[in-house]
Amino acid sequence: VTAHFQFSTELKVRFSETDAQGVAHHAAYLDWLEVARVEYLARIEGGYQGLRDKGIEATTLEAHVRYRAPVRFDDSLVVRARCGDVRGARFRFDYVIERNGEPVADGWTTHACVDARTLRPTRMPAWLKQELARADSASAPSSAESAS
Amino acid sequence: VTAHFQFSTELKVRFSETDAQGVAHHAAYLDWLEVARVEYLARIEGGYQGLRDKGIEATTLEAHVRYRAPVRFDDSLVVRARCGDVRGARFRFDYVIERNGEPVADGWTTHACVDARTLRPTRMPAWLKQELARADSASAPSSAESAS
Amino acid sequence: VTAHFQFSTELKVRFSETDAQGVAHHAAYLDWLEVARVEYLARIEGGYQGLRDKGIEATTLEAHVRYRAPVRFDDSLVVRARCGDVRGARFRFDYVIERNGEPVADGWTTHACVDARTLRPTRMPAWLKQELARADSASAPSSAESAS
Amino acid sequence: VTAHFQFSTELKVRFSETDAQGVAHHAAYLDWLEVARVEYLARIEGGYQGLRDKGIEATTLEAHVRYRAPVRFDDSLVVRARCGDVRGARFRFDYVIERNGEPVADGWTTHACVDARTLRPTRMPAWLKQELARADSASAPSSAESAS
Repeated sequence: VTAHFQFSTELKVRFSETDAQGVAHHAAYLDWLEVARVEYLARIEGGYQGLRDKGIEATTLEAHVRYRAPVRFDDSLVVRARCGDVRGARFRFDYVIERNGEPVADGWTTHACVDARTLRPTRMPAWLKQELARADSASAPSSAESAS
Repeated sequence: VTAHFQFSTELKVRFSETDAQGVAHHAAYLDWLEVARVEYLARIEGGYQGLRDKGIEATTLEAHVRYRAPVRFDDSLVVRARCGDVRGARFRFDYVIERNGEPVADGWTTHACVDARTLRPTRMPAWLKQELARADSASAPSSAESAS
Repeated sequence: VTAHFQFSTELKVRFSETDAQGVAHHAAYLDWLEVARVEYLARIEGGYQGLRDKGIEATTLEAHVRYRAPVRFDDSLVVRARCGDVRGARFRFDYVIERNGEPVADGWTTHACVDARTLRPTRMPAWLKQELARADSASAPSSAESAS
Repeated sequence: VTAHFQFSTELKVRFSETDAQGVAHHAAYLDWLEVARVEYLARIEGGYQGLRDKGIEATTLEAHVRYRAPVRFDDSLVVRARCGDVRGARFRFDYVIERNGEPVADGWTTHACVDARTLRPTRMPAWLKQELARADSASAPSSAESAS
């Protein structure tokens, strides 16, 4: 399943992210997906901050998380992320969160490029579109992978 | 659209919930949905804490949020919530978040009853099932409402 | 002790604010102090948002919290706040957090007025200084109060 | 100044930790101090989780932060931490947060060992006291260090 993800980042569950059930609170996962997204975009020239410096923000349109197994304080997690489905001003990220090689959550988010001041939709810069498309095709499964 | 929601609660966007885009961070919405869920369940005998006292937790299986318009510091929001689709150990909440009568976000979450100690799925107590079903039918649209 | 506090606001401990010790996480208290501060300033013409609209931000210089008793999910809290010690661009807030009339925490924060764009210290507007001084003297203990 | 700190950890400011002033929210610093504290204790046999497994929690009694310069999204921070002043059930941590070698904040927290179930004060285990004292003396400045 995770063969399609070429990018991943690691993090540890912070104590401040746990709740009274003794597990990570479900809202913390959105922060972790964002951490992965930011690091993913950092591979692109300028990164997320570079976008912001050019007056472009990526705003979140939709977020979806499926919680498959609880994670606990100090657990080491791997967040895999993949950008794709770049259309017009919009793009989508898919994620899998793993612990010890086992998926504990997955999800996706959709985003739009907006003007940093007005927060209104703006055309995605051609260079970003190209970069995301390149990253997308790079992480697309080869026929060998999809056979496995 | 919101005719189906009989329950609602109000809150204000906290400064700590904003981010560097000058709007509420998208993860804060999950906290707000939870606030609404907790207050919704508080109408049921014992409420959420009552469930916890009986050794039952409601764990989150899935969360979905659609962000339709940014909200800002100090905005007054109304969170409408409705519980339904109670099956076995599982149940679902639907939400709409409004500002000045206009929807700014909507979403849904699914949950399962779990044993508070083991966090393993447990049968939903009959009384809770009944209460949620009653609340569900109570908030179902009448033909008069659906005509409006 | 709380005779000196004329302003107070109420809130409930959110589930998202708890941690794996089963109590509210210690960082959540800073959010609550901020909620009280914002509502305190809302009594002043324009409030905190009014300050921001004029290009002035209140930045936090120091924060101190003393945790006296743990608070739990769904606990109803009263946060008492008082502004004082207005000097130049700086001012200080003192707080007590109570549950059922018993103090569970206290603390203080110091702040400076800064230019909203540069975040550099800026002179506190005369009207704000006056308002804060007035609020300060209004909440100062009378001899009768201090005798009790 | 930082010669006394032998322990440090690194982190990046997350976007979710920023606020509408465009800087990291002041409550996020408490999370960062906790991250440093947890990693500091991880050097001790069993670490923080080991303490929890033995039914001991470290609860926070007091927290103090001095904010010296704003930090922004994606800033790389070094959090230096030192444990000391171990008395009875209590101990204290001191911290400095740096960016590019310059201090941007400092602070301290005090803690007590409590029984994990009752959250009541409990005697600090001798082995922990010894370990903390050892870590403390190890991080004390030698005459050579204090001369630099």
